Amino acid sequence: MPGTQQEWRSEMSNTPAPELDVVQWFNTSEPPTLAGLRGKVVVLHAFQMLCPGCVATGLPQAKKIAATFSRDEVAVIGIHTVFEHHEAMTPVSLAAFIHEYRLGFPIAVDRPGENEPIPRTMAAYGMRGTPSLVLIDRTGMLRRHAFGAEDDLKIGAEIALLMAERSHGAG
Amino acid sequence: MPGTQQEWRSEMSNTPAPELDVVQWFNTSEPPTLAGLRGKVVVLHAFQMLCPGCVATGLPQAKKIAATFSRDEVAVIGIHTVFEHHEAMTPVSLAAFIHEYRLGFPIAVDRPGENEPIPRTMAAYGMRGTPSLVLIDRTGMLRRHAFGAEDDLKIGAEIALLMAERSHGAG
Amino acid sequence: MPGTQQEWRSEMSNTPAPELDVVQWFNTSEPPTLAGLRGKVVVLHAFQMLCPGCVATGLPQAKKIAATFSRDEVAVIGIHTVFEHHEAMTPVSLAAFIHEYRLGFPIAVDRPGENEPIPRTMAAYGMRGTPSLVLIDRTGMLRRHAFGAEDDLKIGAEIALLMAERSHGAG
Amino acid sequence: MPGTQQEWRSEMSNTPAPELDVVQWFNTSEPPTLAGLRGKVVVLHAFQMLCPGCVATGLPQAKKIAATFSRDEVAVIGIHTVFEHHEAMTPVSLAAFIHEYRLGFPIAVDRPGENEPIPRTMAAYGMRGTPSLVLIDRTGMLRRHAFGAEDDLKIGAEIALLMAERSHGAG
Repeated sequence: MPGTQQEWRSEMSNTPAPELDVVQWFNTSEPPTLAGLRGKVVVLHAFQMLCPGCVATGLPQAKKIAATFSRDEVAVIGIHTVFEHHEAMTPVSLAAFIHEYRLGFPIAVDRPGENEPIPRTMAAYGMRGTPSLVLIDRTGMLRRHAFGAEDDLKIGAEIALLMAERSHGAG
Repeated sequence: MPGTQQEWRSEMSNTPAPELDVVQWFNTSEPPTLAGLRGKVVVLHAFQMLCPGCVATGLPQAKKIAATFSRDEVAVIGIHTVFEHHEAMTPVSLAAFIHEYRLGFPIAVDRPGENEPIPRTMAAYGMRGTPSLVLIDRTGMLRRHAFGAEDDLKIGAEIALLMAERSHGAG
Repeated sequence: MPGTQQEWRSEMSNTPAPELDVVQWFNTSEPPTLAGLRGKVVVLHAFQMLCPGCVATGLPQAKKIAATFSRDEVAVIGIHTVFEHHEAMTPVSLAAFIHEYRLGFPIAVDRPGENEPIPRTMAAYGMRGTPSLVLIDRTGMLRRHAFGAEDDLKIGAEIALLMAERSHGAG
Repeated sequence: MPGTQQEWRSEMSNTPAPELDVVQWFNTSEPPTLAGLRGKVVVLHAFQMLCPGCVATGLPQAKKIAATFSRDEVAVIGIHTVFEHHEAMTPVSLAAFIHEYRLGFPIAVDRPGENEPIPRTMAAYGMRGTPSLVLIDRTGMLRRHAFGAEDDLKIGAEIALLMAERSHGAG
């Protein structure tokens, strides 16, 4: 059974979102930080360029989110969390991928792990794979963390519920 | 350019939603009225059973809305607004259609017009055709009126923004 | 494992196709008969207008077949084989359906059964439901009978194999 | 207007297919040559791993062709014809791509051009971009050359027409 707004909110986890730990950015001259994005809802989309589910559903959804919501309220950020085939998905290949798939939102390269395949930000968030979608509220709290394909209708609603929290806030 | 939440709200029209004027209901033992649904967001989906766009995109979206949001907060109502091929889309045919397409939300038959093809509720709302989607807020105001296919992400967000208005309300 | 051409041909059944037993035609001024279509490959598509699988996949495939192959070699014929909700899918409703879905190939109404829900042609072919697809070769033999959705690539190949049999024939 | 079988055959170009000029193979221990494939219909699918149209429609079609037709009659061969972003689509990246997208048919790496971005086989065939689909008949003649997305129904029919030519042949 679908939940009420209240149930949705209570289902949303509520812990501080770890800061991004990345080595490189595309599509932005001013590398964003989560701290600097306080006041906005942040949609963090973790992907690998050779992950079929990311290409077929995750990234098109991220593009659509970026096209639907105002940048003044919702920041879409991609993060390339390579945890396999590392030599196949270097930043050089990622740059061509971003160009060919017409991705326009800021995209970061997650910092490689030391002696382990999982990169840093992916590990800090405990992501299980790609695509992963993370919603962070205006106060920097991690509110939603999904692995795999998510329905547009539901994600649109969840982002809007977080947008609407402005009115509750101190500001 | 995508708008902010405030722009979205201001774009939404704001007039009282005309009451439904219908002759028959399916999928409900207690015919709902808009008056009786005050306090909930109402999603009114107008369709014709032989309209290809309704079958391909409009009705699947209405089903998904009904499955995603709680009935305690969002009421999905279908209305069969036959304005052409009247003899082909009688309630007898509609009943089989509802059964075959597994539509579970309440569906009304719009009251036929007198000496004109457009039925009453469709005329009262000034609908231009099918599918048409109408969003009515918790206070009975008509806030959104769309003709044709609408994107799930955007509709999910708009419904959620209206849901979130509870907090602003007197209740 | 996919079969060779020879295996495909041998898998295709090979019995005379029963003549159509129908009560009404749409989209043709000269009602066709299988006997009159000898020399052509016949694609017989059985559907019900309120069958979701027919609307979503079967009929679009039949339309595409009619648009892809020459009428001089391949005849696409629809047959409305109503075996349930009879009062909901009358010829009056079918006429509007054909108009709204822009179906341009000849479509027949199967002759209702006497004291049984299954209509005559459907019974003669032993069809299990809708959509059903039947391929009849240039000599009037029933070569393929499929229930449910069939892949375009495979159906395109099977029709072409039957087309190519012209060269084997007496003509 | 759809053509007859004869028109289709006459529309098909008819020149000897240039031999493949490649530097590396995946998914095969015995690198095939067109000369060695005489007697079979060859489906040559040219792609780039970062070409969105290849990933969305071209390669899924090639996979389906390989799954539908017998290897004894139809050989599906992929060729990675990199003509842009060369450093982003190296064989190392291609290997991971093939693994992630579960491509099982033999795939060759086209030989890079000397002082020009277009690789050798791509140039020899005069391909205009990716995806490109080439059909070669049992005698080694190039019969069809398509740039961009092609419909499954039509391609299935064209492959089958070439398969059926066995009966006409010397064999």
